[in-house]
Amino acid sequence: MHIVVDREALKEAVNQVSKAVSSRTTIPILTGIKLTATHEECILTGSDSDISIQVSIPAQRDDIELIKVVKIGSIVLPAKYFAEIVKKLPAEHIEIEVLENEVTHIRSGSTEFNLNGLNAEEYPRLPQLEEDQVFSIPAQLLKSLIRQTSFAVSTLESRPILTGVLLKLEEGLLTLVATDSHRLARRSAQVEVNHNLYLENVVIPGRSMNELQRILEDESDPVDIVITNNQMLVKAGRLLFYSRLLDGTYPDTERIIPSTSKTTLEVETKALLAAIERASLLAKDSKHVVKLSIQEERIHISSNTPEIGQVFEQVNAHHIEGEEIQIAFNARFMLDALRVIDSPQVSIQFTGALSPFVIKPTDHEHMLHLILPVRTY
Amino acid sequence: MHIVVDREALKEAVNQVSKAVSSRTTIPILTGIKLTATHEECILTGSDSDISIQVSIPAQRDDIELIKVVKIGSIVLPAKYFAEIVKKLPAEHIEIEVLENEVTHIRSGSTEFNLNGLNAEEYPRLPQLEEDQVFSIPAQLLKSLIRQTSFAVSTLESRPILTGVLLKLEEGLLTLVATDSHRLARRSAQVEVNHNLYLENVVIPGRSMNELQRILEDESDPVDIVITNNQMLVKAGRLLFYSRLLDGTYPDTERIIPSTSKTTLEVETKALLAAIERASLLAKDSKHVVKLSIQEERIHISSNTPEIGQVFEQVNAHHIEGEEIQIAFNARFMLDALRVIDSPQVSIQFTGALSPFVIKPTDHEHMLHLILPVRTY
Repeated sequence: MHIVVDREALKEAVNQVSKAVSSRTTIPILTGIKLTATHEECILTGSDSDISIQVSIPAQRDDIELIKVVKIGSIVLPAKYFAEIVKKLPAEHIEIEVLENEVTHIRSGSTEFNLNGLNAEEYPRLPQLEEDQVFSIPAQLLKSLIRQTSFAVSTLESRPILTGVLLKLEEGLLTLVATDSHRLARRSAQVEVNHNLYLENVVIPGRSMNELQRILEDESDPVDIVITNNQMLVKAGRLLFYSRLLDGTYPDTERIIPSTSKTTLEVETKALLAAIERASLLAKDSKHVVKLSIQEERIHISSNTPEIGQVFEQVNAHHIEGEEIQIAFNARFMLDALRVIDSPQVSIQFTGALSPFVIKPTDHEHMLHLILPVRTY
Repeated sequence: MHIVVDREALKEAVNQVSKAVSSRTTIPILTGIKLTATHEECILTGSDSDISIQVSIPAQRDDIELIKVVKIGSIVLPAKYFAEIVKKLPAEHIEIEVLENEVTHIRSGSTEFNLNGLNAEEYPRLPQLEEDQVFSIPAQLLKSLIRQTSFAVSTLESRPILTGVLLKLEEGLLTLVATDSHRLARRSAQVEVNHNLYLENVVIPGRSMNELQRILEDESDPVDIVITNNQMLVKAGRLLFYSRLLDGTYPDTERIIPSTSKTTLEVETKALLAAIERASLLAKDSKHVVKLSIQEERIHISSNTPEIGQVFEQVNAHHIEGEEIQIAFNARFMLDALRVIDSPQVSIQFTGALSPFVIKPTDHEHMLHLILPVRTY
């Protein structure tokens, strides 16, 4: 392989595929980035075997030549060093030439590196996916859906399926669900589906979702999502993002979402968030317990750590309906939920001090958070 | 104590004194911030016994009332919680009232905290300093002097005196020196001295210098520096910064600075810095060894880690004089020095492959860096 490539284009591509490369892998070749030059493009690949990212740099973009291919071919270069080198090279163009024994000569301005590469033949092949289950969604909407759900996945390996985000698709309605069995986040959106595509029990690792969220541009261009038995592929322009799916059956979470309510209140999202942030400053036990009660049309929030002190908050509710309630919950769960709700007001529906309660934005029906209370009263 | 204080003024003062508070102290009361309200001001104090910071909030500033004192007095509040609480309080004013048993009531808007305080009588008193050895220096100049020297202090406790920065004052010339015995940084500046003040062997802990550098505003207002036998006090407006001095005799570093040179070169600071940054990417042994040689009026820089690869750099010198040289050194030492030199060009003076070499800006005589080479050739 022998190419001359535009530095900025290479830097961007290396940055993107590096996100899939882990330094803790047990497979030495996966510490590298694979480069493949054809006459049309240069393809970069990074992978930790769970997630793989592939980016192609076209030979030309907007009439500007990005790559000059002297000789086609492939090489795997150590990701950590290659990324740092590319970032610091002095000139606009970078010449990359594979010499004998995978030694790779990198030249830019008056700087020359010889980097020991690895044989690209030994790099694992990416899965070849049947593309019959495909739907489209704007990149920024997908980013929102992930941000608003994936924080709720379990971090414990005791129930591996809960470390993933459930993806469902029915009649064009895409729904993501995440739960760690103490709280749950659910978010839906209408998406573009060609055929009457129906998906259930597609469970994507939470870490994959977070990486995908980070790597996608915040733009309205649609991305295509391909689902197979054990893989998801997201196609965003010249970037391909692969993730394996989790094995197992995701629990039926719909049945734990209460359909009735004994107490309902509506409140400014930011005012409630700020009050709970302050209350959580003194909620220093392991469960970060904060108490909430309703008295005289006002929400009272309090917290207490005997050796440090107490806090008392009052927040005006717009609307309170139903029975009085005293309830205690983990402040972190409430903060996580309120922070991803972009709507100015939320409605909270309680069904008793020991039953899960539901938080929803007041301006649409596409998001729901559920939190299990803590027994203290 | 019972006061109502402007939130922004309190937030700023708490931020500043918090920098002296360590959570790792073995003296429980030092995990707190001391507040003292008089009729004229509210004084906040934080200390880790090495460094103490005191900030006073005046009753009024620019005709705006910052403090209303209902009752004078003192209290010590847990720094970690108090700082977080102040940052998050909702209203413009904060009411602080000490109740029984040092329980302190903090009220702002509809938020109320009760925080367990400690008896201010038990807080250590700050040293009372004789102010007969004083000089003045603009804050931003002092910041520069510290930034350009303190990185070179030793981090090893084997020679404790080298963990400090030496401060000398002679005929109005202030000089700071730091060395870890492998490299040395020296920086001077003319300062304002009323009498013929002469200071030698004043050694300030490197950590104190770094904290001072961070806390000083980047402005041209002068700060006063008071030196006693075992304390330094820096007065910057309403902020007082105390540091203990190190015991012991600082070594005579002047005698190791070579006065002659066998090879001299002049080069663009940034070009040399960039080349050594790149070379250091592959200088991965424990000593970060980079080699430098001069051939045909050009500086050649290289580095080699067999299992990863090699790098070769060329940098144009403006001027080369004297013998050819091949020398090896720790890239980190060179990077540290070049990064604090604000001048566009540096001059480097070598006296042989195994002798210390000197780096100076070409446009003034007030800064010098010295680096001991590494034996490899």
